[in-house]
Amino acid sequence: MTKPTINPDLEVERRNASFNVSKMTEFLHGGVQQLKRVKQIKKQLLGEKIFGITSNGKSAEEIYDLSVKKNVILFELVAKYNWNIDDLTIAHELLTTGLPLSLQIMMFIPTLERLCTDEQKQKWLPLAKSYKLLGTYAQTELGHGTNIRDLKTRADFDQENNQFVLNNPFPDGIKWWPGGLGKTMNCAIVLASLYVDNQYKGLEAFLVPIRDMETHEPLLGVQVGDIGPKMGLLGSDNGYLILKNVRIPRTNMLMKYSEVDRNGRYIQHGDPKANYGAMTLLRSGFVRISALGLQAAATISGRYSCVRRQGHLDSKGEEVKVMDYVTQQYKITGNIVNAYALTLISMSTADYYHKVFQEISVDNWTNLLELHTITCGLKAFCSEISSDGIEVSRRACGGHGYLASSGLSNLYVDHLPVVTVEGENTILYLQVARYILKKVSSFALKGEGLPPSLQYVSEPTNGPISIETLTGLCKILQIRSSFQAKRVAEKFQNLLMSGENQGIAWNKCSQELVNAAKAHVECIGADMFMRAFQKSSTIYPDLVPMLEKLLKVYFYQRILEGAIDYVESGAVTIKNLDVIRERHCEYLTSLRKDVIPLVDAFDMEDEQLKSAIGCYDGWAYDRLYNEAQISPLNKLQVQPAFQKYIKPLQIKSKL
Amino acid sequence: MTKPTINPDLEVERRNASFNVSKMTEFLHGGVQQLKRVKQIKKQLLGEKIFGITSNGKSAEEIYDLSVKKNVILFELVAKYNWNIDDLTIAHELLTTGLPLSLQIMMFIPTLERLCTDEQKQKWLPLAKSYKLLGTYAQTELGHGTNIRDLKTRADFDQENNQFVLNNPFPDGIKWWPGGLGKTMNCAIVLASLYVDNQYKGLEAFLVPIRDMETHEPLLGVQVGDIGPKMGLLGSDNGYLILKNVRIPRTNMLMKYSEVDRNGRYIQHGDPKANYGAMTLLRSGFVRISALGLQAAATISGRYSCVRRQGHLDSKGEEVKVMDYVTQQYKITGNIVNAYALTLISMSTADYYHKVFQEISVDNWTNLLELHTITCGLKAFCSEISSDGIEVSRRACGGHGYLASSGLSNLYVDHLPVVTVEGENTILYLQVARYILKKVSSFALKGEGLPPSLQYVSEPTNGPISIETLTGLCKILQIRSSFQAKRVAEKFQNLLMSGENQGIAWNKCSQELVNAAKAHVECIGADMFMRAFQKSSTIYPDLVPMLEKLLKVYFYQRILEGAIDYVESGAVTIKNLDVIRERHCEYLTSLRKDVIPLVDAFDMEDEQLKSAIGCYDGWAYDRLYNEAQISPLNKLQVQPAFQKYIKPLQIKSKL
Ligand SMILES: Cc1cc2nc3c(=O)[nH]c(=O)nc-3n(C[C@H](O)[C@H](O)[C@H](O)COP(=O)(O)OP(=O)(O)OC[C@H]3O[C@@H](n4cnc5c(N)ncnc54)[C@H](O)[C@@H]3O)c2cc1C
Ligand SMILES: Cc1cc2nc3c(=O)[nH]c(=O)nc-3n(C[C@H](O)[C@H](O)[C@H](O)COP(=O)(O)OP(=O)(O)OC[C@H]3O[C@@H](n4cnc5c(N)ncnc54)[C@H](O)[C@@H]3O)c2cc1C
Repeated sequence: MTKPTINPDLEVERRNASFNVSKMTEFLHGGVQQLKRVKQIKKQLLGEKIFGITSNGKSAEEIYDLSVKKNVILFELVAKYNWNIDDLTIAHELLTTGLPLSLQIMMFIPTLERLCTDEQKQKWLPLAKSYKLLGTYAQTELGHGTNIRDLKTRADFDQENNQFVLNNPFPDGIKWWPGGLGKTMNCAIVLASLYVDNQYKGLEAFLVPIRDMETHEPLLGVQVGDIGPKMGLLGSDNGYLILKNVRIPRTNMLMKYSEVDRNGRYIQHGDPKANYGAMTLLRSGFVRISALGLQAAATISGRYSCVRRQGHLDSKGEEVKVMDYVTQQYKITGNIVNAYALTLISMSTADYYHKVFQEISVDNWTNLLELHTITCGLKAFCSEISSDGIEVSRRACGGHGYLASSGLSNLYVDHLPVVTVEGENTILYLQVARYILKKVSSFALKGEGLPPSLQYVSEPTNGPISIETLTGLCKILQIRSSFQAKRVAEKFQNLLMSGENQGIAWNKCSQELVNAAKAHVECIGADMFMRAFQKSSTIYPDLVPMLEKLLKVYFYQRILEGAIDYVESGAVTIKNLDVIRERHCEYLTSLRKDVIPLVDAFDMEDEQLKSAIGCYDGWAYDRLYNEAQISPLNKLQVQPAFQKYIKPLQIKSKL
Repeated sequence: MTKPTINPDLEVERRNASFNVSKMTEFLHGGVQQLKRVKQIKKQLLGEKIFGITSNGKSAEEIYDLSVKKNVILFELVAKYNWNIDDLTIAHELLTTGLPLSLQIMMFIPTLERLCTDEQKQKWLPLAKSYKLLGTYAQTELGHGTNIRDLKTRADFDQENNQFVLNNPFPDGIKWWPGGLGKTMNCAIVLASLYVDNQYKGLEAFLVPIRDMETHEPLLGVQVGDIGPKMGLLGSDNGYLILKNVRIPRTNMLMKYSEVDRNGRYIQHGDPKANYGAMTLLRSGFVRISALGLQAAATISGRYSCVRRQGHLDSKGEEVKVMDYVTQQYKITGNIVNAYALTLISMSTADYYHKVFQEISVDNWTNLLELHTITCGLKAFCSEISSDGIEVSRRACGGHGYLASSGLSNLYVDHLPVVTVEGENTILYLQVARYILKKVSSFALKGEGLPPSLQYVSEPTNGPISIETLTGLCKILQIRSSFQAKRVAEKFQNLLMSGENQGIAWNKCSQELVNAAKAHVECIGADMFMRAFQKSSTIYPDLVPMLEKLLKVYFYQRILEGAIDYVESGAVTIKNLDVIRERHCEYLTSLRKDVIPLVDAFDMEDEQLKSAIGCYDGWAYDRLYNEAQISPLNKLQVQPAFQKYIKPLQIKSKL
């Protein structure tokens, strides 16, 4: 009996999709053109066997070697296929794991483009694009990440020599974390406090050579190295950097927005607002990364749950697919639903981002602050849902989810930095809260207008609200958010009135502020996916019923998770809640038969998932077995440790 | 200026503890005697430098070598200091990470003691205790973990040769996961379906030699190996095992409770209930492991939060310790509180365990089922709180929490199996739910009595309940649990009445069943720590105010987390909830000044925490720097990858 190509347990799941899977794939990729592009890059990239090799079981040195090799091959593909930055971003997303040189493209070159004068660009960009200059972005220090205003690295202008002298104090001033800084890059954009005549001028960026361009040895006065093993992203050599009287030419300060002239005058020009842009782009990138991470986890755990048979519902008959257990559906289908919601959110966030930057290009800055707040909030919100969701998926695969070959453990640990980098999530929520507080207070106290994203705060909250329509559900989210925003604004005001100082009052309210921010971001998220959903309804009308169902379940999940808030705000009654629970369970169960079509629609390749249990063919056990065969420990039948340690122990121990 | 031994930021925190720290340490260790014992073992164990070496950055082979070495040295310490099994358990707890031979002591020898006849014990125990026989416990298969009734490995009795013949089908019957099976052990207790004359008799345990006792080579018919890299516990070579017509003597079946005689008769004797015992002990062990894991995370993140200064509350002055941010207190202090609660729960669980086993020793089995249910539930509950709490702590340390040298990432990934092993948590909750459903239904329908742990279901739920007393708070937990138990029992009954079959009805209610089980386990937990608390009040009266405060905060946290349930059940009103929130925040803030004393009281050694940021002296940055110096990548200034890959890329790329 030969084995069928596809595990029949999975095959059968693919037969009766209640929606058009390939149309869904197209929609999720933003249209047929974009899907074609992604498919092509996938083929070009994943055709290279090296990208299928994982770091599992390898030493730090081996992993580094492998990762540089991968990265260089990636760059060769860029040249070979003439990929632009968007193409390369797609490629990075497909690879997920950390690469030593990725900041070259993601941060170094973009920062040069953003902060350099034309002259500087002419000089450095060709060097950077031909990999002569390999650069990272060195902002964080051992002692400072979130609060960059107090960075300790300083650059003193030495007028006599027309140079800057860079120093950072030990230990808290040591630059710490920049990707590729450890062993790979030969220069860094260093954020430092600029001093002229010992007078602080501002935080500025400097291009600092750190390794010899020929020999790659650290330059004089530079101590540089790797910061050591991490939880994940093992391939990227995050590094540290100590500068002792390192001298660079005056012209190595990135001078587009501010400069120090030959005479030591500090001059600012241009609009510093433009600087928001970069972070905004990075953060909206994280929304997408969150969606993709959750898609991968949902695909793996969804497929595995349909081939894993365990236990019985009846005393007779075959064992049950674990996917048929309702508790499992809460875990797996719940995550699939979230993955869809996040994907739609990320699609509209990207659209919104482009719209605002279009405006900016014609010098209309109105929406930049909104965009900034929205991307802060969505980055925090989406990254939390995806990280927690990936772990739920992993646990839902039982013991096998703990194996590296499941793909889930690597996915999780590599994904986890999203909650910390580009703004630690609590900090981002507090930023959003500051915006809410300001806007809601001036609305309440001075009758000032509200920005678009907060418009709902001024809207009436009564009237019967349907839990059966998407707009009704949106409204429910808004009522709760509005309630929380007003409540915390009032508490804050009262504290101020009672004589508390601003900072203390802020701190006292901070947990409620975070909660209010989360509530608001949920509304933004809902608004974002409603846009994507509405767009779909014209271009992909056939998909509407399924998308609507998914989004409803998503809404129910959000409401049930924050149920007490909704009840307290009057957005739903206890009685309503029971209906929502019922509806939620009903829909979740009704999605059972579409689980595999839904995850297939994400169109993730086996080479991308690197998961023995989540493969398209569903032969989880055979693949787990095959993966075990390449375990490093299996190279030898008997490991040296037997003769070295165990034998002597046996001899020593008297019977 | 020489640096003080202790970071002044930490020093100052130790000055004004509002309770007696060393008394607290004593109490948490179960008294002065036990504390002394633990301290002695710590000294004996952690004095060995090897236990300070981590696996960070090493290859699978290097890690295995190191781990076997550690394990053998551990066994030498056992002999040297004449440790008993409790001492060794303490030592294991101190080491936390996986060791290849740990199942020898934790499962192999205990199983032999439990399931062997006297004759078998005489033969095998001395061999096991002198490490000639190195054994693991092979139950799980690739295809079956939770549902062991359908294990595929079979043992056929061959009467002619007086042997059993063992086989397991490829791939789902492959034994998979047993600790140390990969490369270390030379035999395994194999769980297999016993067949005599092709007739199924039952699931039985067999002692199966797998490697030659001299050469350590796999025996004929045996294929054995490592299952590959894992998320954590890298030191334990979990393995797989394929048996092809492997023959063992009839007498290698463990025959205390059932045997196959020379003529192929299958005979059962003794009370199979006794088998519950072993799992119960393991599970109550997990309650303790959960408490210890959370203690470690709380210690590290608590200390780091008091030396990490980041940002300002005021525009002027020094930067703030992040511990002073209220949002941080919700994370860190919240976990400290949970760590205390879990510790108290684990203390009483151990007491209860011993009490029940005392009863059993005089043939009183009354409480065994209760004990079983309680340990199932508490294992699931505590392991979830600890795993999630460790991750909260890790994230609360910002970027540095992602470094292996923080200690938190290893702690987390090594700890995570607790939610999966010895009963996956959802499964355990469903077991508890089955018990609740049965007891509550026969109480409601037939007026039968309730077991002690469910007594509260029959108690009145009205009357004003104080949220200011521990007994009041206990009551609140019970009212909610009672409500949920009755509600799901009713739903289940209704489904049955409407003609649904048992299995389907069960499945339909399963999410509510899990929730009801969680609610019940919260009550058990509360009951457990109330016992420990009451005990403390006579022996350590000075500690009572602090313990009471901690437990109240714990209660508030539980209630706020499940707030909607409490409101729905009528246990608290929305108005009450506001008071609870306020009280919670008040107490949490008031604990701020005791954060360091509270974590110091856990008495965790630096060598045990292996954390640069959580050390007793608080010099986080210096230690992070020192740890980076030993990063494998820093052995060379220039890694070979530069010449191998980067140079050629630079040369190829035209400027
Ligand atoms: C994988 C990885 C890659 C990285 N790559 C780079 C890179 O290439 N270049 C670079 O420059 N940096 C990099 N970083 C550093 C990263 O930017 C910082 O770690 C991140 O900004 C978080 O800051 P932090 O570590 O200082 O966290 P902290 O601010 O120390 O956070 C610790 C805790 O304090 C709390 N906290 C801090 N301030 C406040 C406040 N004002 N109010 C309330 N709570 C507060 C936080 O909420 C958190 O719970 C990287 C980090 C990682 C993990
Ligand atoms: C680090 C580690 C060490 C281990 N060591 C050993 C060892 O030494 N010896 C050994 O024999 N084994 C060992 N194991 C295996 C371990 O015992 C199993 O992994 C564990 O029992 C969980 O079972 P599973 O993997 O089959 O999970 P599964 O049962 O496959 O769980 C997958 C999902 O299905 C759901 N599910 C399954 N059945 C039901 C049901 N009836 N109703 C509702 N939902 C259901 C679960 O809730 C879960 O979400 C180890 C595992 C790990 C991770």
